Amino acid sequence: MSVFTLERLGQLNATYARCIDNDQLEQWPDFFLEQCLYLITNADNHAAGMEAGMVYADTRAMLQDRVLAMRDANVYEDQRYRHLIGAPLVLEQDGALAVVETPFMVARIMRDGNTEVFATGRYLDRVAQQPDGVLKFAERVVVCDSTNIDTLLVIPL
Amino acid sequence: MSVFTLERLGQLNATYARCIDNDQLEQWPDFFLEQCLYLITNADNHAAGMEAGMVYADTRAMLQDRVLAMRDANVYEDQRYRHLIGAPLVLEQDGALAVVETPFMVARIMRDGNTEVFATGRYLDRVAQQPDGVLKFAERVVVCDSTNIDTLLVIPL
Amino acid sequence: MSVFTLERLGQLNATYARCIDNDQLEQWPDFFLEQCLYLITNADNHAAGMEAGMVYADTRAMLQDRVLAMRDANVYEDQRYRHLIGAPLVLEQDGALAVVETPFMVARIMRDGNTEVFATGRYLDRVAQQPDGVLKFAERVVVCDSTNIDTLLVIPL
Repeated sequence: MSVFTLERLGQLNATYARCIDNDQLEQWPDFFLEQCLYLITNADNHAAGMEAGMVYADTRAMLQDRVLAMRDANVYEDQRYRHLIGAPLVLEQDGALAVVETPFMVARIMRDGNTEVFATGRYLDRVAQQPDGVLKFAERVVVCDSTNIDTLLVIPL
Repeated sequence: MSVFTLERLGQLNATYARCIDNDQLEQWPDFFLEQCLYLITNADNHAAGMEAGMVYADTRAMLQDRVLAMRDANVYEDQRYRHLIGAPLVLEQDGALAVVETPFMVARIMRDGNTEVFATGRYLDRVAQQPDGVLKFAERVVVCDSTNIDTLLVIPL
Repeated sequence: MSVFTLERLGQLNATYARCIDNDQLEQWPDFFLEQCLYLITNADNHAAGMEAGMVYADTRAMLQDRVLAMRDANVYEDQRYRHLIGAPLVLEQDGALAVVETPFMVARIMRDGNTEVFATGRYLDRVAQQPDGVLKFAERVVVCDSTNIDTLLVIPL
């Protein structure tokens, strides 16, 4: 029986989103393997096969640095995020690794109360089951639908 | 085996949202225990430990009164709501009671067709299983992300 | 045991949305039976019992024609869609047929990056299990909350 049930993948995404939206960024890098890929790009660049993105990290340490930078910038003082994440689709799986695609929508809520749809897109993930059973991201490529995401964005998607 | 499966909690939220969005408000209080807590607050007040909120009810009868007031105000003549509810996370459970956190996004659709993201946030719930097996809310604390939700809001979140 | 588990219905909706949002429209008619009903209408018309809608098709061939028209119009050059689909509720089921209601929210992302909530509403479906086990739509009635959906809309909801 597959370890990549929709329930487990759904819970992975739910805890991931909660970590960001509840301002627990220090725990965010723990969703990734030490050697990993975290990339925020847009649909046009992704379709063109370009790996360049607005954000790029290939180790957990880089993600931790990113969190420190976010704390320096006091990003939660000015805004909040709210992720709504759709049902995951397992496209492939092989033993302890699965390729998964999942849609998302993220609202940004500014300090003055103004709320807008900040980003939509899909996660293209490689999810790995660890020896202890925990699921982590070997890759999370965040393909935004818009080519015009705020390039100053600091909170992770 | 837990009675608080994600499937059952997801169905509870789906029927709850359908009740509101399909204008069946008279059934809405039935999702709560007779002695309950229904509170709409915002993230800042909640983080500060303040129980004060935009809406407060601690009995099902108060919720029923609220529905009568909504009917007097003909709230569905001017607007519709549409809830999208994310995956529930069970934070704790003990026998027939579970503490659950669930994100939501609500759109408001005005009579002229204008649609906007009206509210985002998370439900902080205490869900109780009744002797007949039905799940009800002992508490539903609606923590809105924005500090600036329309204070005239009448339809429940 | 029912063939209409929430997991299977959720996956049906997830693959349906992915087909549209990833610009694989040619596969979209395959989600329907050859004799089917696909209707986009609004809540007011639906409540009034009017079958008239913004889009109407009652065979898979009509849906295929619609896809050809969309390709002629190069609809994906100007915009993208992103569906977020809520949990399905099975209202009735009888053997290989189920009546299901499911909320949705669709964002539209324009070429210039502008993103907006384009449509919200609910799917009223009759889902049929085929002899090979595959679930298809005998009916998908898309009831939009707004009376003012862009009448030029071409991408399916």
